[in-house]
Amino acid sequence: MTETAGVTPPPRGFPVVGMVGGGQLARMTQPAAIALGIGFAVLAAHPQDSAARVVPDTVLGDPDDPEALAAFGRLCDVVTFDHEQVPAAGLAALAASGTEVRPGPAALAHAQDKIVMREALRGVPCPRWLVWGPDTTVAHVTAEVGWPVVVKTSRGGYDGKGVWVARDEAELREVLAEPLAPGARWLLEEFVPFTAELSAQVARSPSGQAVAYPVVRTVQQDGICKEVVAPCPDLPADVAVAAQELALRIARDLEVVGMLAVEMFLTPTGVVVNELAMRPHNSGHWTIEGAVTSQFENHLRAVLDLPLGSPVPVAPYTVMVNVLGGEHPDMYRAYRHVMARDPDLHVHLYGKEVRPGRKIGHVTLSGADPDDLLARARHAADYLTGVIDE
Amino acid sequence: MTETAGVTPPPRGFPVVGMVGGGQLARMTQPAAIALGIGFAVLAAHPQDSAARVVPDTVLGDPDDPEALAAFGRLCDVVTFDHEQVPAAGLAALAASGTEVRPGPAALAHAQDKIVMREALRGVPCPRWLVWGPDTTVAHVTAEVGWPVVVKTSRGGYDGKGVWVARDEAELREVLAEPLAPGARWLLEEFVPFTAELSAQVARSPSGQAVAYPVVRTVQQDGICKEVVAPCPDLPADVAVAAQELALRIARDLEVVGMLAVEMFLTPTGVVVNELAMRPHNSGHWTIEGAVTSQFENHLRAVLDLPLGSPVPVAPYTVMVNVLGGEHPDMYRAYRHVMARDPDLHVHLYGKEVRPGRKIGHVTLSGADPDDLLARARHAADYLTGVIDE
Repeated sequence: MTETAGVTPPPRGFPVVGMVGGGQLARMTQPAAIALGIGFAVLAAHPQDSAARVVPDTVLGDPDDPEALAAFGRLCDVVTFDHEQVPAAGLAALAASGTEVRPGPAALAHAQDKIVMREALRGVPCPRWLVWGPDTTVAHVTAEVGWPVVVKTSRGGYDGKGVWVARDEAELREVLAEPLAPGARWLLEEFVPFTAELSAQVARSPSGQAVAYPVVRTVQQDGICKEVVAPCPDLPADVAVAAQELALRIARDLEVVGMLAVEMFLTPTGVVVNELAMRPHNSGHWTIEGAVTSQFENHLRAVLDLPLGSPVPVAPYTVMVNVLGGEHPDMYRAYRHVMARDPDLHVHLYGKEVRPGRKIGHVTLSGADPDDLLARARHAADYLTGVIDE
Repeated sequence: MTETAGVTPPPRGFPVVGMVGGGQLARMTQPAAIALGIGFAVLAAHPQDSAARVVPDTVLGDPDDPEALAAFGRLCDVVTFDHEQVPAAGLAALAASGTEVRPGPAALAHAQDKIVMREALRGVPCPRWLVWGPDTTVAHVTAEVGWPVVVKTSRGGYDGKGVWVARDEAELREVLAEPLAPGARWLLEEFVPFTAELSAQVARSPSGQAVAYPVVRTVQQDGICKEVVAPCPDLPADVAVAAQELALRIARDLEVVGMLAVEMFLTPTGVVVNELAMRPHNSGHWTIEGAVTSQFENHLRAVLDLPLGSPVPVAPYTVMVNVLGGEHPDMYRAYRHVMARDPDLHVHLYGKEVRPGRKIGHVTLSGADPDDLLARARHAADYLTGVIDE
């Protein structure tokens, strides 16, 4: 680990990809980089960060500091991200470092600012929306969005933070009294009565090759992804194909490079786009074991403009359930238990100390019966969290 | 990377496994350690070693130096190996460091010395054999082993080094005139006319739990593993079960902990044991994508006495073909080509500079038709090597 100098040179002719951010997405990219034999570096704030623990070419520095980004960029052939919240000054510094930045700042803007995203997605099924400005009135909200209204900060939210639901004017006023991050505005959206939440992931390379993963069902709780079933059971084929085509179209129109996750609501009349993420995404962790090529490998292939790998599933169903930190700081006993109980279980832990509610890992199971897989995976996740102990 | 001090402490309650040796087996163990969330350290001689490039907790030191081993052992809860050629003094130093050594020196002796192995395997089908001593005559060879005779150094051979075939007395005398490594003797074995070479891998934990992977067919060329088909096509079920039972019995009788590979000859009258390896093995690289739990993960689980993962295959067939270095030092163009040609292909490169004949990677494919998979995987490997270029 280094605060200044170089990264280990990969074998002759092979490039170095740098990932900004030291979280679990960068951590899970390391196995893909190991197999591919490329160089892989991470810019992380702390040596105890999830990825810093497992990537030798970790550069310690603040991903929000333009100088740190520029210095990191000079070590890499291509820079990509494990999160989108990189300030514009940092992206400019990266571009000035002479490295390729993928996805580029223009594409990334759509994942950084939900208003920029909604404006770019005109023509795509979205919730009705408006921006709360100085002249906006409650009558506008009633007419253009309806009640209840979903209130979002345009920038800086993640994992349910920065999103509220207001049932009436009083609740709306309460949310709008919250402080806004610099550069953020209030986005008000229609509350979509969905029958399921879906995620459609695609990988796209700079030369325009793209592959679509099967559409998955996600379950969110308090804005945090709780579980994923891949593919979404009982999804009509025409809806699945429409969702994949929508994701491919968004990737092309916004010139995304790397992985794109399009989170959608399924409604009786079709899908509606909720959010975009331009990086490997929690809804794609199942691909490590469940698809021929994982989202982490295809993200690397895409940002390197290498031919993409097959996104085809290797089993009828794969389910993923997140493991959140519970009350017990030492998980090792529970870990032994879940392995003994289910030899098919894949346990992924992120090298994080346990803190209540923190995403510290996930479990994955593949097989033929999604209900059986979910029951087993939920049991394992709950046991690891400490929610159940029998 | 450190020449002295500690390893990154894993989260509370989690152990640190140390692996002696910085080759590709240690490199491919890192992704398994990342998923499991345990600490993982490597003792490597050079910072450019295959594993040293991808494991932050690499300790630089000579794996043949007892002091380096003892210092490494003090950093770890359990020490294991990516090769068996660790001198007895080093194993003693590790034991004295207070760390668990798995497999233990008594088990490991059978993988270090082929005569010790043959003596321990009395009662198991083996080639006829004798040790060439001061009183041995050619008449003994003719009577007890027959011609041609396979001549092996008892210690220190690998990848075909240390093995010769002598067709007559003149050739035998020529081999026996070769210098022997310290502590090594000459082992003379029956030349077994096999119909196929097999490998039966099992994982075994200190508490005695064991799992058996499907028996695979291996093809060796000049003593180097060239390709593997898992499971071995057309192997009668009773022979497959007998081979698995034999491997489980050997693991139990020799008190192996971790992965054991039993390389066998298939003959018209059954299987005959050729070699043992007590570590992840080239014949098990297919398990990374082809089995529920990879050999690398089960090796870690076994040495930690964690419950073992399922060894069941995830596809009807998985094939693996090794990539040897060719004449072209820059493989990147060929690498793009093979990815474009076959989106199902898994490419694994070991971070090594290309040298002719050096194992620098492997490719894997899963599917229903082993002949089709082999043709595609061979093409990819040959293209990466530079044997073909169309």
